[in-house]
Amino acid sequence: MSYVLRNALIPTHTGYETTDVHIEGGKIAAIGSGLSVTGTELDARDKLLLPGFVNAHTHSSEMWQRGIIPPYPLELWIAQLHEYAPLDSEKIYLSALGTAVETLLTGGTSVVDHLVLIPGQELATIEAAVQAYRQSGIRAFIGPLIQDQALSTGLPTGEFTDLEHEAYPLTTAEVLGIVEEAVRQFHRPEEGVTLMVAPTGIQLCSDDLFKGCVELSQKYNLPRHAHLLETRAQQMLAQEKYGCSAVEHLQRIGYLDQKTSLAHCVWLTDADIEILAQTGSTVVHNPLSNLRLGSGIAPMLKYRQAGVNVSFGCDGSASNDSQDLLEAIKIGSILHNVTDFDYRHWITPRESVEIAARGGATGLGMADQFGSLAVGMQADLVLYDLTQLSILPRTDPIGLLILGRPTQVVDSVWVKGKQVVSAGTVTTLNVEKLRQDLFAHSNWDPFRKSAQAEQLEARYRRVMGLPE
Amino acid sequence: MSYVLRNALIPTHTGYETTDVHIEGGKIAAIGSGLSVTGTELDARDKLLLPGFVNAHTHSSEMWQRGIIPPYPLELWIAQLHEYAPLDSEKIYLSALGTAVETLLTGGTSVVDHLVLIPGQELATIEAAVQAYRQSGIRAFIGPLIQDQALSTGLPTGEFTDLEHEAYPLTTAEVLGIVEEAVRQFHRPEEGVTLMVAPTGIQLCSDDLFKGCVELSQKYNLPRHAHLLETRAQQMLAQEKYGCSAVEHLQRIGYLDQKTSLAHCVWLTDADIEILAQTGSTVVHNPLSNLRLGSGIAPMLKYRQAGVNVSFGCDGSASNDSQDLLEAIKIGSILHNVTDFDYRHWITPRESVEIAARGGATGLGMADQFGSLAVGMQADLVLYDLTQLSILPRTDPIGLLILGRPTQVVDSVWVKGKQVVSAGTVTTLNVEKLRQDLFAHSNWDPFRKSAQAEQLEARYRRVMGLPE
Repeated sequence: MSYVLRNALIPTHTGYETTDVHIEGGKIAAIGSGLSVTGTELDARDKLLLPGFVNAHTHSSEMWQRGIIPPYPLELWIAQLHEYAPLDSEKIYLSALGTAVETLLTGGTSVVDHLVLIPGQELATIEAAVQAYRQSGIRAFIGPLIQDQALSTGLPTGEFTDLEHEAYPLTTAEVLGIVEEAVRQFHRPEEGVTLMVAPTGIQLCSDDLFKGCVELSQKYNLPRHAHLLETRAQQMLAQEKYGCSAVEHLQRIGYLDQKTSLAHCVWLTDADIEILAQTGSTVVHNPLSNLRLGSGIAPMLKYRQAGVNVSFGCDGSASNDSQDLLEAIKIGSILHNVTDFDYRHWITPRESVEIAARGGATGLGMADQFGSLAVGMQADLVLYDLTQLSILPRTDPIGLLILGRPTQVVDSVWVKGKQVVSAGTVTTLNVEKLRQDLFAHSNWDPFRKSAQAEQLEARYRRVMGLPE
Repeated sequence: MSYVLRNALIPTHTGYETTDVHIEGGKIAAIGSGLSVTGTELDARDKLLLPGFVNAHTHSSEMWQRGIIPPYPLELWIAQLHEYAPLDSEKIYLSALGTAVETLLTGGTSVVDHLVLIPGQELATIEAAVQAYRQSGIRAFIGPLIQDQALSTGLPTGEFTDLEHEAYPLTTAEVLGIVEEAVRQFHRPEEGVTLMVAPTGIQLCSDDLFKGCVELSQKYNLPRHAHLLETRAQQMLAQEKYGCSAVEHLQRIGYLDQKTSLAHCVWLTDADIEILAQTGSTVVHNPLSNLRLGSGIAPMLKYRQAGVNVSFGCDGSASNDSQDLLEAIKIGSILHNVTDFDYRHWITPRESVEIAARGGATGLGMADQFGSLAVGMQADLVLYDLTQLSILPRTDPIGLLILGRPTQVVDSVWVKGKQVVSAGTVTTLNVEKLRQDLFAHSNWDPFRKSAQAEQLEARYRRVMGLPE
């Protein structure tokens, strides 16, 4: 398909210009006034065209626990999350669809799904998510969330030196085997589905698992992903496990490179930051879950000053509890103003756009393919309607989009040149049916208790120095 | 009008119940299953009924500068704000309408408008806002924003001891006279329009102005409002001006009482907090502007532990840059989790609802009249549609509402028993015309420069210890 967007507003170095944009063969074919080309014509007057953003870290199936986990830190929150995880692939499919829809309607054209796998149905889980993302048309990066150590090992030991942990039900080789099989079956980057290696993080993974992921990454040219130092407890755990910081250790075992994106990065030292810069690793900032779980404020301004590439993620809907990418970008931008009195270091709305689009693509090793508004780039584009009430009156379009609270402003979306949102509606799937399905597959359940969280709580409070 | 809501979900101490609610004579007349009463029947199944929230601090006319002021701290931001303030009452009217609409569609039934006055047209400004709020049907608290000292006096002096400031164009008596005249003309609490005394804050107001406001407050039974210690610069200024903290000074001159609500309260000491608790004063937390302007994180958990009443505000749209009350409540709730490792102190979604509704009413001295879901209370109520995509799947209704990113979820709103929103649409005014008017009265203006901000900048950086 070929599209000609007439009179779209696009940002330039010195302001904005009104121009035509031609999309053809999946790419941005031309940008200029009065283009004499053919294709489906769209009147883009009073609309802002930007490169699509990347929702650079989420866990789609957490949508089933949106809004229900009480105010807990990560280590107790996750026990509750596991205890009530969805266990059928129909639900996996629906929550991946929901994640795609919310991301597309809030400026995203790519999603990184650090996908929680149903035990014993790992490939079926991945297949269900792949099916949903293909249907939606969003560009998907699926990192099967793997570990080879039991959940209870993820807390620092502190004084509890005689703890016994359950064995993890799969060997490291079996876990890696699942990932490799998934790559064989589902990794089709040219069709918009890219598999990633994605160990959950140092808290639940052996060195062998990380090293096996590095090998798979090299063999199949896969982006690498992981959680990194989300909480103070993880920082303590790394010291216990390695006698050094988690970042030093990951560098030593070869996990960090220019296709490695690391979710959270809240508890890094200046030396750690230097390592990320040297290795070309990317920090994925998830401001809302960091606040919700009380993890802390990731030092984004320091990352930027050190030359570390950064991007934005929503994180899963059980710790956010939304997939509104514009919300994550807004909060992820203004949050840091309270960490540095010098406002000259603060993130401007134009820089937020750059982080969300090009920063996201860079973290996946694909900034040469999408994430910028330039001729020859793949057409992952979003057209925003600037006449909607939530972003009026007219002032600065990008300021309104990033600092405001835009609702219903995404008019059209293209991914690899295919239009997937038109006039504010996702055209690739039946959103009304999705809504009915999400309703039908769930129940009001406001006051459930987590036995696992209660069991871990005494140990957590003791190790973290909290009163009993 | 009389309404019967059939099968609404309402929160109880132990969970939720499905029940009927009867609204009559402006009040909640009955709550119970199978009520045999008459009135307009509404099917409220799968809808959550809550008391309306209070947008407890905003400046409506800032909407004209939404999204445009660059990342600046308050003291430079405000110079830009003043330089481009709207100067005709038609604009005041439109931005008050816009503020009412955004508040109503995000859970608010009351708004506190700390209204910036057009110089020389002070009463016309107030009249325009009153007209808009009456038309919208929202319960309005209008605090004409007054000062009697020039803007340049609002910065700490530091080493610049020989500064000369322009005189303020009005005397203290003249300023107070305007407020008293406004009270005579517009203060009609029984009709939903309450005037407040609202000096902007210690940074630009003399003791005589505060004392005059106390007298007016006593004479006409008006709530009191002010900004308080929003920034570190204000904390420094208070020490320069008074030789003590701003809170100690305000207590000494009698400004603090149970009808006093104070916006921001970011830079208070533990002793200050104790004074707020003793005087029954209310803190209005404006999390988004505090982040946007880099003011800091107000110690909300400390306020709650000290027994200080707290509420939520959006603040003006030039420092937020939205009037989405649900956004302010979400961020104002989860932000504090990073200030205290003990999650037992964190604000739960149910507590957020209490703060937003009853906390807001308490700060206005009206918690006996609205802000709770109980028979005999005025019917300021919001009915949320729990079947909307943004808050599915079903888990905990209040958790979804507060921690999610709900859009289009407000189904119906009543203020003093009058329905002002129905099926998601504001019924009291033409929102489509408002949208067109906001568009027509504005222009894209992305790169303006503020001479005043540039002029103040060198002094600001020097006094605040920032590099030149």
